[in-house]
Amino acid sequence: MYDLAIIGGGPAGVSAAINAGILNKSFIWFSSGESSKKVERAELIKNYPALPDITGKDLANAFKNHTKSLGIEPVNEIITGVYPLGGNFLLLAGNKEFEAKSVILCLGVETQKPVDGEERLLGRGVSYCATCDGFLYKGKKIAVYCTDRRFESEIEFLCSVADKAFVTPLYKNSEIKADNAEIILKTPVKFVGEERLTAVDYGNKQVEVDGVFILKSAFSPTTLVHGLKVEDGHVLVNRKMETNIKGIFAAGDCTGRPYQYIKAAGEGNVAAHSAIEYLSTL
Amino acid sequence: MYDLAIIGGGPAGVSAAINAGILNKSFIWFSSGESSKKVERAELIKNYPALPDITGKDLANAFKNHTKSLGIEPVNEIITGVYPLGGNFLLLAGNKEFEAKSVILCLGVETQKPVDGEERLLGRGVSYCATCDGFLYKGKKIAVYCTDRRFESEIEFLCSVADKAFVTPLYKNSEIKADNAEIILKTPVKFVGEERLTAVDYGNKQVEVDGVFILKSAFSPTTLVHGLKVEDGHVLVNRKMETNIKGIFAAGDCTGRPYQYIKAAGEGNVAAHSAIEYLSTL
Repeated sequence: MYDLAIIGGGPAGVSAAINAGILNKSFIWFSSGESSKKVERAELIKNYPALPDITGKDLANAFKNHTKSLGIEPVNEIITGVYPLGGNFLLLAGNKEFEAKSVILCLGVETQKPVDGEERLLGRGVSYCATCDGFLYKGKKIAVYCTDRRFESEIEFLCSVADKAFVTPLYKNSEIKADNAEIILKTPVKFVGEERLTAVDYGNKQVEVDGVFILKSAFSPTTLVHGLKVEDGHVLVNRKMETNIKGIFAAGDCTGRPYQYIKAAGEGNVAAHSAIEYLSTL
Repeated sequence: MYDLAIIGGGPAGVSAAINAGILNKSFIWFSSGESSKKVERAELIKNYPALPDITGKDLANAFKNHTKSLGIEPVNEIITGVYPLGGNFLLLAGNKEFEAKSVILCLGVETQKPVDGEERLLGRGVSYCATCDGFLYKGKKIAVYCTDRRFESEIEFLCSVADKAFVTPLYKNSEIKADNAEIILKTPVKFVGEERLTAVDYGNKQVEVDGVFILKSAFSPTTLVHGLKVEDGHVLVNRKMETNIKGIFAAGDCTGRPYQYIKAAGEGNVAAHSAIEYLSTL
């Protein structure tokens, strides 16, 4: 059981982790590397005070060196769900479980919106976890919708289990090695089904399947945390970065504009302080 | 007439100025150097992400170099009042006047609370401006209460005008050269008077005077801006850093805890973006 779990490796997550580290809290920091990829991609950042004209790559490296210098190492797991559990929180990363007394969400801004039907049919034919649910589809027909090359081995695992797989790799230079995989280079527009998923609609065609696997590294806040209040797609927080759920805080781009590194870093600091204040009341 | 006036040279003010500069706004940035002194005094800052173990002095220098690299120079005037004026704002620095369409307050946290009676008798015997009001006290008795060595020449000017001056220098190694100055090394506890100031109460003794001059570099937000809403001594702002007065924004320590450099820098960024959004609606 950790005091604090921080989800996200962008400037907000880095800042929160630094403060949790300095203040000697027992914490776990989940970073997929995705958010720092977003920092890395920035050509030139001109408004991170004290570091004029820094490239995104240099800033991402400086962040990494900072946490490293404090002995803080991120855990490279993608959290797919956060659930309240007797006053604490259960965090799932595929079939791995973690527990924490408080959570800071530094999710960034989702680039893919959930597909129509995704949240409604989650757990009823829609799955985020190949290793957890893959075996349920032995000899069946599945669809796989993947946004990140890092999951390619999971696609191959799913293909090895299923009878037939319709695969949509939403990244460049996919190299899926599976005879039973049919590549469909269209983003699903709808997951069809009443009680359970029955088909995936790709706009121009519909494919009947028993299940669909969504392998992505960024989840919408409401997909991740049931009951979390959002407004215009952003996690609703107050000035202390408290969400509507006691013990869950949020920071960075996921809380709203402006989408700026220094704003995110500032909010990560505030969220960490608020989480620590919350822990002291338990 | 400027689009934007930024008051304060700490991390919030620096960050706001950087963004106003990058976004090519017509703005004026008032920095007394006091807030960066506060940064300078920090021995070691461990939680400014990307700059591990930076000394306060190095961070203050890095801030200075950053604004300099963008061609931004602070104006070394101490703003003593902000007044609404036909939809815009009039800013007074002693007897100098500036006008701006929007204002960002980055006032830091006041270290001296206003003296009992200070705000009530302001303009009625209590003055913040030696050069503006000094001549009103020709041949009269005054008190001078000064928190910063930089104002020593103003003390000497006041002594040259008045018949007698009771001077309280609240800084080390004062070197006031004036025969008619009597040094009182006690902080005033009360400014006495009904319609006008009649005396200064130092706790153990009371001195009858015609006027008192308060020469300090940090003013409480409510002293500076009449009608500004504060809560627990902090300027009340929403997530966009908007105060209760349209066109006036606030950022940094003056908006509340945690008092952290990165939090202040993040808020300066948000305030600048909000001010620019506000300007676009005018």
